[in-house]
Amino acid sequence: MLSFCQSEAQAYFARTMSKLKVGIVGASGYTGEELVRLLARHPRVELAVASSRSQAGTPLAKAMPQYREIIPQGLLFSGAEPAALAKEPVDVWFLALPHGVAAEFARPLVEAGKRVIDLSADFRLRCPDLYKSYYDHEHPAPDLLKAAPYVIPEVCTDDWRDARLIACPGCYPTSIQIPLIPLLRAGILKPEAGRTVINSYSGVSGAGKKAEAAYLYCERDSSIKGYGMPRHRHLSEIEENLSLAAGREVVVQFNPHLAPMKRGIATTIVLPAGDATVDAVYAAWNEAYRGKPFVGILPTGTFPDTAHVTGTNRCDISAVLDKRSGNLVITSAIDNLLKGAGGQAVQIMNLACGFEETAGLV
Amino acid sequence: MLSFCQSEAQAYFARTMSKLKVGIVGASGYTGEELVRLLARHPRVELAVASSRSQAGTPLAKAMPQYREIIPQGLLFSGAEPAALAKEPVDVWFLALPHGVAAEFARPLVEAGKRVIDLSADFRLRCPDLYKSYYDHEHPAPDLLKAAPYVIPEVCTDDWRDARLIACPGCYPTSIQIPLIPLLRAGILKPEAGRTVINSYSGVSGAGKKAEAAYLYCERDSSIKGYGMPRHRHLSEIEENLSLAAGREVVVQFNPHLAPMKRGIATTIVLPAGDATVDAVYAAWNEAYRGKPFVGILPTGTFPDTAHVTGTNRCDISAVLDKRSGNLVITSAIDNLLKGAGGQAVQIMNLACGFEETAGLV
Amino acid sequence: MLSFCQSEAQAYFARTMSKLKVGIVGASGYTGEELVRLLARHPRVELAVASSRSQAGTPLAKAMPQYREIIPQGLLFSGAEPAALAKEPVDVWFLALPHGVAAEFARPLVEAGKRVIDLSADFRLRCPDLYKSYYDHEHPAPDLLKAAPYVIPEVCTDDWRDARLIACPGCYPTSIQIPLIPLLRAGILKPEAGRTVINSYSGVSGAGKKAEAAYLYCERDSSIKGYGMPRHRHLSEIEENLSLAAGREVVVQFNPHLAPMKRGIATTIVLPAGDATVDAVYAAWNEAYRGKPFVGILPTGTFPDTAHVTGTNRCDISAVLDKRSGNLVITSAIDNLLKGAGGQAVQIMNLACGFEETAGLV
Amino acid sequence: MLSFCQSEAQAYFARTMSKLKVGIVGASGYTGEELVRLLARHPRVELAVASSRSQAGTPLAKAMPQYREIIPQGLLFSGAEPAALAKEPVDVWFLALPHGVAAEFARPLVEAGKRVIDLSADFRLRCPDLYKSYYDHEHPAPDLLKAAPYVIPEVCTDDWRDARLIACPGCYPTSIQIPLIPLLRAGILKPEAGRTVINSYSGVSGAGKKAEAAYLYCERDSSIKGYGMPRHRHLSEIEENLSLAAGREVVVQFNPHLAPMKRGIATTIVLPAGDATVDAVYAAWNEAYRGKPFVGILPTGTFPDTAHVTGTNRCDISAVLDKRSGNLVITSAIDNLLKGAGGQAVQIMNLACGFEETAGLV
Repeated sequence: MLSFCQSEAQAYFARTMSKLKVGIVGASGYTGEELVRLLARHPRVELAVASSRSQAGTPLAKAMPQYREIIPQGLLFSGAEPAALAKEPVDVWFLALPHGVAAEFARPLVEAGKRVIDLSADFRLRCPDLYKSYYDHEHPAPDLLKAAPYVIPEVCTDDWRDARLIACPGCYPTSIQIPLIPLLRAGILKPEAGRTVINSYSGVSGAGKKAEAAYLYCERDSSIKGYGMPRHRHLSEIEENLSLAAGREVVVQFNPHLAPMKRGIATTIVLPAGDATVDAVYAAWNEAYRGKPFVGILPTGTFPDTAHVTGTNRCDISAVLDKRSGNLVITSAIDNLLKGAGGQAVQIMNLACGFEETAGLV
Repeated sequence: MLSFCQSEAQAYFARTMSKLKVGIVGASGYTGEELVRLLARHPRVELAVASSRSQAGTPLAKAMPQYREIIPQGLLFSGAEPAALAKEPVDVWFLALPHGVAAEFARPLVEAGKRVIDLSADFRLRCPDLYKSYYDHEHPAPDLLKAAPYVIPEVCTDDWRDARLIACPGCYPTSIQIPLIPLLRAGILKPEAGRTVINSYSGVSGAGKKAEAAYLYCERDSSIKGYGMPRHRHLSEIEENLSLAAGREVVVQFNPHLAPMKRGIATTIVLPAGDATVDAVYAAWNEAYRGKPFVGILPTGTFPDTAHVTGTNRCDISAVLDKRSGNLVITSAIDNLLKGAGGQAVQIMNLACGFEETAGLV
Repeated sequence: MLSFCQSEAQAYFARTMSKLKVGIVGASGYTGEELVRLLARHPRVELAVASSRSQAGTPLAKAMPQYREIIPQGLLFSGAEPAALAKEPVDVWFLALPHGVAAEFARPLVEAGKRVIDLSADFRLRCPDLYKSYYDHEHPAPDLLKAAPYVIPEVCTDDWRDARLIACPGCYPTSIQIPLIPLLRAGILKPEAGRTVINSYSGVSGAGKKAEAAYLYCERDSSIKGYGMPRHRHLSEIEENLSLAAGREVVVQFNPHLAPMKRGIATTIVLPAGDATVDAVYAAWNEAYRGKPFVGILPTGTFPDTAHVTGTNRCDISAVLDKRSGNLVITSAIDNLLKGAGGQAVQIMNLACGFEETAGLV
Repeated sequence: MLSFCQSEAQAYFARTMSKLKVGIVGASGYTGEELVRLLARHPRVELAVASSRSQAGTPLAKAMPQYREIIPQGLLFSGAEPAALAKEPVDVWFLALPHGVAAEFARPLVEAGKRVIDLSADFRLRCPDLYKSYYDHEHPAPDLLKAAPYVIPEVCTDDWRDARLIACPGCYPTSIQIPLIPLLRAGILKPEAGRTVINSYSGVSGAGKKAEAAYLYCERDSSIKGYGMPRHRHLSEIEENLSLAAGREVVVQFNPHLAPMKRGIATTIVLPAGDATVDAVYAAWNEAYRGKPFVGILPTGTFPDTAHVTGTNRCDISAVLDKRSGNLVITSAIDNLLKGAGGQAVQIMNLACGFEETAGLV
């Protein structure tokens, strides 16, 4: 082996190493585009199929000219017929569909033996009744709902890596759970109902690529505006998972807002510290996240900045204690399209498929 | 009189109506520039003096080319020697100085019989000890501190209009007090210590015109970042005034952030509703703000948008009740340079001098 | 008369002075909204009608919450049936319609004896054949086309103030003609075909309020992109008017681009100086624009900045001579919604109706 | 060899493949930060030294928290003493210094046998007299000036890969030369003096990380403004290289502007087409850039978008012919910090050191 010159060896391995075939359903929105970008360049996979009902037959390179060089030569958007997609020679499917559509694809793909990572909210919850209370209709596939693990890799303790269908968490919920879950599990925080106040501010890509007047440049420029209060759908997965971590019911206040930027989420969480000290918080974080490449723990008094995580799959977290009020103030920042969606989905694939956790993400 | 043609009559009155002479100390920062813009066009005043230590002798029109047409012909920045300014034939002075400098000017100007409206934090508090605990030094003029009323016109109940020295409140505190004070006075809200959580997001002009790397375009573009937590100086005036309105001590959580826009503040306040209903909140607001031109009460579920108040002197407010958590969520938006500073200062002048409240502000 | 106290007198005149009734057809786009803002606050007019096919029956204050305080109480969008509008007691109509629709309204309104100011391109040209070559169909009302003067007030020499139908120029063309027309008329510039190169960069509001993906915040943020080259429709009015001013045919290069901002147009014009000197250019400008409130002439070497004209009805212009290339470089900046549309239309109304030229515009 | 499991083999090669040691002088500005980002992640190099006079002793991870995960553990800014740096075990040095400083470092480093890639303008020209006429002083190292090749890899025909000192071109000049040089060499364009008109619009990072008021967020937001006209220093390298390509003197008009975005340059070039056809232009481009990974040729009528190249090392180009004016309109877009600076510098290193051209750049 050592007789190969190194560049020949590298080239040899690049050619011979088997590449997993991946596909994206709903490849034409912002989440889908981000997945195209990540998967087209991923060293261990080959982007084989990208489907889009609205753009079937169009070359991806035409819809995403900024990725022309990395998109597989000649790849066209395929149609989005679940049965047809299930027959494709794709090993791992990413579903980047609007709410309510994923079940239509998940079942046939799972039944065809594929791995499916869903980026919508459709399979995130454990409890069909909770789903119904937030989404106003019966869950179309409650068996799949219950079976699908909800995976933030850094905190998910389930045996999830062999699951056929995996739910990729929401953007806001990711920015909230990463800082809170270790503290709840360690019993450092014991939140009382309604006393955990969470404010989040998101770049406009979080609203999707819908051609609606509210998301026009001129409407969103220099605009911060709340929405979805008091009962945003993400509360369902936020509270379900915080409650699990705490071992009892957790009810929080969640206030989302749109901010005048394209990408990024800044979240500020306030709750009574109780006996918690800043040292205890940081000890729990260091314990939970030691060696984890995608969590950045900033010193107390240094606050996360969305501009510092945008373009990365990292979540930065920090905490200060306010002695006057007895509150802990926890701040976090992520890129809503990366750690909040596509990046986390690829991270999930990496771990599920035995790749380096950071493959294609750094 | 009716024999005058109407345009002649209008012109006549424009010429003959006496104009108050006004001056600005510290006219070259963002607040100062906004004051120049407002006062240069104000129908009842004449901008006679604009001082700036750093730019003395420079024509204002050179420093503020965007206002060339409205700046009084040939007006130069004057020096900023307090005794010299006190001799100027100016009736009302606006102090737009960095923290800690105002006292140096306020005393000579007040002693010279002038009206002084201070836009810094130097005279906002009632209590010298509170000042010391937040600003780390003794107040340089505690007699003036105690005498100067703190005026948000819509809520200030003091007899303030004849005061010689008036403190114009801070931007964040204005966005917080306008929605909260009527509710505290009416006893609709009875906040418990530390349970009022306030998050504010401000455009970058709030940081001033300091040539510091942190405020460069490239540092602030697409960036949301917290700062000044947990004990921002504005807490002093926020809590002093909320406590007065509540009739007891109020301790709040205040989390300021910088947002990627030039102007605007979005504030989101969460506190336990207790017995308060949304109807009671709106009734109190309608009662307090009926006929007030600069408070916009938006229906519950319609959230203030900084883009809708930027460029105006208006504060928009709204509230929703979250039954699940028992919290009230109150949102507000202002333009930090207008209702948060210069606009409110001009509004104060209008009321103190007997002008239309909206003169020069609409 | 002098026995009235001045405030009473002012109030008296405000009440008794007759207000012209104005109406807007197509009030719900960005140009329409800007007209609402200007006319609702205009001291000499009353906004009586605002029509919009898509929003008929909706309160204006609901569609434009940022203008709630200034919109006439209870004003609803009316329908947009030309015959019905013609019967309204409105003296001056502003047409802010998409291309090709204005003629449908202009004729009935003009025939009903109203003044009509059209902000679309429909009546800007003199020559029906030119219209056809750019718009691919016969002009629907060639008699109106020929009769309607094209008015940039600072440069229009026609006897236009009594015209019933007036064409308000386009945004890019305004930014181009204000600097060039005096120089062409004075013979200072003698452009050769194709050697005048004009590059313009516009804020996104210039594209209108169309809910199309291309104008979403996420598509336009941090994006500069050319479009409409080489034959943008504005070339028709640009060249028609430059040719008139030059006394011979002028053919220019016009390259429009979208820029990542909401409002503003920056235009840079390059052409051979020939014998022209910078002094001659400035002399011609000073001659042409002396006393004109809406043209700002910046010294050579000081370049217009869109941020300094945005929110104003002003066009800033400047010129440098490049000895090396023998070219003159002329730069200009306007707010595309003000001097490029609504502001200029109100300025036209002011002059046509005998108001102060700056009424409602400063 | 095949008995190694593939992941073990990969890891083996990663460990054993020799990594070139690289260093950055002036690592703390925007160009320096971009180089840190690129080199810290480059698969074939190890970032060994990052110097900064102003920040010597500070951990890089503290100054660039967004890169904490990729910065070599514990790397501190070193001092910037040329002789000391020359002793470092660094193979390739990147100089990212302000104008006029590079010579101080280049000579000692070259004499110490290192490869030096300079990102400033100091060594870009061939002719010391030209340097003097633009920079107003004698060149401090004319022998190095003459020896240093000026390298846009896609167009540089010199035997440059063994040069010790290589000049990395400027941002605007790169966006201009990539589209023009093949056309000049092929004789498709024969520009006449002063008739090539180039307008460029740059994101604010092009101005550097200087804490100056002009580059504050509030000054640059929503602002487009020309500067540096008519004789910007980049004209020296633009014309020197276009002249070489054309085989005769080329004099152009170059108009730079600042635009309200962080990164990106959009350039629009107009010149008489003469006999050139769009087909000939595209044929020349395809010929020159076939297989080149960092030039994107967009079809005629599709215009480059800075948002599509930002974050990449790619230059997109396109052309249209305007029959009316006889002009060719050529548009290009790059990321000023990547293809306009750090990315191109890394591309140069890759080629000079025998790496994959795209290593660390995709």
